[in-house]
Amino acid sequence: MTELALAVRSGDRRALARAISLVESQSEDAHRLLADLWQYTAASLVVGLTGAPGVGKSTLVDGLARAYAKAGRRVGVLAIDPSSPFSGGALLGDRIRMDDPDPRVFIRSLATRGHLGGVNRALGGAIALMAAAGHDLVLVETVGAGQSEVEIMSHADLTVVVLMPGLGDDIQANKAGILEIGDLFVVNKADLPGADLTVREIRSMLSLVDKERALVPITKTIATQGEGIDALLAAIDAFGRNPEERMLQHSRRLQQADRRLGEALAELVVAKIKSSAGPGHWEAAVEQIAARRLDPEGAARELLRPTIEEA
Amino acid sequence: MTELALAVRSGDRRALARAISLVESQSEDAHRLLADLWQYTAASLVVGLTGAPGVGKSTLVDGLARAYAKAGRRVGVLAIDPSSPFSGGALLGDRIRMDDPDPRVFIRSLATRGHLGGVNRALGGAIALMAAAGHDLVLVETVGAGQSEVEIMSHADLTVVVLMPGLGDDIQANKAGILEIGDLFVVNKADLPGADLTVREIRSMLSLVDKERALVPITKTIATQGEGIDALLAAIDAFGRNPEERMLQHSRRLQQADRRLGEALAELVVAKIKSSAGPGHWEAAVEQIAARRLDPEGAARELLRPTIEEA
Repeated sequence: MTELALAVRSGDRRALARAISLVESQSEDAHRLLADLWQYTAASLVVGLTGAPGVGKSTLVDGLARAYAKAGRRVGVLAIDPSSPFSGGALLGDRIRMDDPDPRVFIRSLATRGHLGGVNRALGGAIALMAAAGHDLVLVETVGAGQSEVEIMSHADLTVVVLMPGLGDDIQANKAGILEIGDLFVVNKADLPGADLTVREIRSMLSLVDKERALVPITKTIATQGEGIDALLAAIDAFGRNPEERMLQHSRRLQQADRRLGEALAELVVAKIKSSAGPGHWEAAVEQIAARRLDPEGAARELLRPTIEEA
Repeated sequence: MTELALAVRSGDRRALARAISLVESQSEDAHRLLADLWQYTAASLVVGLTGAPGVGKSTLVDGLARAYAKAGRRVGVLAIDPSSPFSGGALLGDRIRMDDPDPRVFIRSLATRGHLGGVNRALGGAIALMAAAGHDLVLVETVGAGQSEVEIMSHADLTVVVLMPGLGDDIQANKAGILEIGDLFVVNKADLPGADLTVREIRSMLSLVDKERALVPITKTIATQGEGIDALLAAIDAFGRNPEERMLQHSRRLQQADRRLGEALAELVVAKIKSSAGPGHWEAAVEQIAARRLDPEGAARELLRPTIEEA
């Protein structure tokens, strides 16, 4: 194990921060680091937290992290800003969210540079590092709605969907997808008018999906006042206690593993082909595709032939 | 060329619809079809249109499509619903948006089932099919904000960002990413108070990015009344006229080709490994990763060794 890996394992916060940066920049060292630390990542519970902008996710995450830390447990928070693919995450990175940073809480923003595949790899790596560093809980918060929920879900053991009373029609319309990914629902800002109506609406929409979804817990919180946080925490802790939920968690980890194996393979092969096909070969294929003289599939077959076809 | 490919080329609308379904379901036939038709996809201009829910993107897209058709040109519209990864797209698919469907306009929703990689492949394929079917313009509309913009951009020659007056702070905060992907900005619902203020805000935010972005066109529209559509159309047509924009378009098509080649390669290799590693090999590796006994990278190297290492 490298010195950095050992330092991460020992709970050294600076080492963890440096390690996450390595993963973010997808450096060669990151691979080694993750290979060393992967075996220590099983125990953490990874909770994804998602919802539309403005529902109060960050305050809720802060509240949850504080409450966990108060109970003597260690929490890692990963905030993702998918809205800014380029200048990505800088705003959040500079934001100081806790007045009195607890040593048991580690907060980090993840810049989402480049295309989603890259983000996704970095996210998986950062979660693994936080887990290996001994955080009992890793909270992953995304800003915004949309496709990012699916991405969170692909890494989380458990997904919390945050809503608020009186959302507009457009956001309600977006619920169709959200309904199917939430293991827990939270109606935050529950002091606003219509909170109970929103709870009933979610409940009835869930019942429309299927019988199992009808039983999904819905909690109310007022994160700014710390209300409902303990109940939410209890709901998170309770998840995975019954056999069906444990099966679900196991099958999710298998799915995640399947996907990560596919991604790792693809990356290795593309690197291999780029280096072995000879200088300019890859670029020539790209030019042919861009000029519409060769289709991507056909070009890929041609590039692969010398390396893999005989096998 | 297959019969279906010939029918798509000839402009047969039913054939095109069937071909897109094939691409969506990622059937084997889809590969063949795209390989046959890829050579006919160069001439279309692919325009991505994005913005937060509620800004009136669909009405704007309808207006643009009508205006194009009136000028005797053929337009394909692809609507994507990233908010619903599972029940995906059904709502949009059933929506009838034009009272008098023009034979020169072809509208299709793309279900965004499964993870984003799949969506992305289907999107690329559907755009190529619409282009090969002879549509001069392919408009790609996403519902919602977030990471999906980057996905659109990765397929578009030109990206239009739609905003409206008086957006809330949360959406304003999301602008950071949007600012860097728009080639054209539209302030729709320009009859609402604050339209000119919004234009000025966008302009000043763009100037903060860099000198080139400061010159990006911003148009005002009232899509429901058809106002400003012709000016927007002219701005879209004008794009790519000057040498810098032509260079930009060329480099984008190269980037797209590079990415598609990588994806096609990855897909081929994963399929190859799955079939050649022997029954149960892949699943065993996945189990090891999920149990944290083997890291994804290490498992990938082991699976690859017999097929590719010697090359």
